[in-house]
Amino acid sequence: MINLLYPNKIKKEKVSNTTYANRGMDLEYLINEANKYYLESDIAVIYKKPTPIQINKVNFESGKPIITKGKFNQKSTLDYVGLYKGMYLDFDAKVTKNKTSFPLSNIHEHQIKHIKNIIKHGGYAFLIIEINHEVYLFSGKLLIDFTEKDKRKSIPYEYINKYGIEIKYGYNPIIDYLKAFNELTNKEDA
Amino acid sequence: MINLLYPNKIKKEKVSNTTYANRGMDLEYLINEANKYYLESDIAVIYKKPTPIQINKVNFESGKPIITKGKFNQKSTLDYVGLYKGMYLDFDAKVTKNKTSFPLSNIHEHQIKHIKNIIKHGGYAFLIIEINHEVYLFSGKLLIDFTEKDKRKSIPYEYINKYGIEIKYGYNPIIDYLKAFNELTNKEDA
Repeated sequence: MINLLYPNKIKKEKVSNTTYANRGMDLEYLINEANKYYLESDIAVIYKKPTPIQINKVNFESGKPIITKGKFNQKSTLDYVGLYKGMYLDFDAKVTKNKTSFPLSNIHEHQIKHIKNIIKHGGYAFLIIEINHEVYLFSGKLLIDFTEKDKRKSIPYEYINKYGIEIKYGYNPIIDYLKAFNELTNKEDA
Repeated sequence: MINLLYPNKIKKEKVSNTTYANRGMDLEYLINEANKYYLESDIAVIYKKPTPIQINKVNFESGKPIITKGKFNQKSTLDYVGLYKGMYLDFDAKVTKNKTSFPLSNIHEHQIKHIKNIIKHGGYAFLIIEINHEVYLFSGKLLIDFTEKDKRKSIPYEYINKYGIEIKYGYNPIIDYLKAFNELTNKEDA
């Protein structure tokens, strides 16, 4: 469904009647598609971590275990993890309907701590942010710097536009975020 | 419960009445404890991936989502992922009651493919195998070599003992598998 809906979306400049959740799934869908492409093209191994579930009750139906009670646990890490040219990648995809800024309430304290740890141990943590129908790679370092220096509850769009790396829509993969990641690592190495 | 049961276990030379599943959980418990230690001591960030669940039905109780029907999906990757000194680690913990060999039916075709991909892209894949009350780090490279050269359905204990790196039980963490991993990378670099 998401798949079929998608092509209309990039053509339209503004999509007013989509919900936050729907749009979140769309970005996620495109990232999953990019990951499939990266794996099949032997570029990288990147995958979405399963959602952490607390299993409370399991029944057996024809010998197979069926979960009949479970709860969603809060994530303490980010959504995606992967390996690219020997580098450890850890990132989250975030969508905001907000046009002027990205609310930091989207990111939990645990996740900030996780991002700091990843950077400390030589990995790469970042966010892929969709704002104003544009997609940006925003590095964990930028995020940590921003949250530590600035006590604001959101990152202004101008800030993301200036310091983030825009991921232009392309063809196969539509969201070629590793291209932006290459720019990021070139910048960081320089 | 696992926690409380554990101390009796390492004291005993042979534990005959424990089931495969129980012992599997024990090794898992010790690896999780090691990971906690590595995180708290600022050594590495390594965690168990959540079990992939297919959610079929969700109800809401007092506004909170409760899974009322779900299935366990087959894993295509390994159980643990992490970052250590800039290196990407991906591994599984396996326990066998079998004294003479480690049955390869424990490892799915998808997982073999995943291990190959990890190695190809500059990461480190391995197994932590418990056999005969001994614990070994057995590298993905060894596993791939063995499965490709030998068409046997299990790895003989002698082979694991000869080529694997034994993880001796210690104190905090009891299973200090990164020590064995250091040996592995020194070997592989040499």
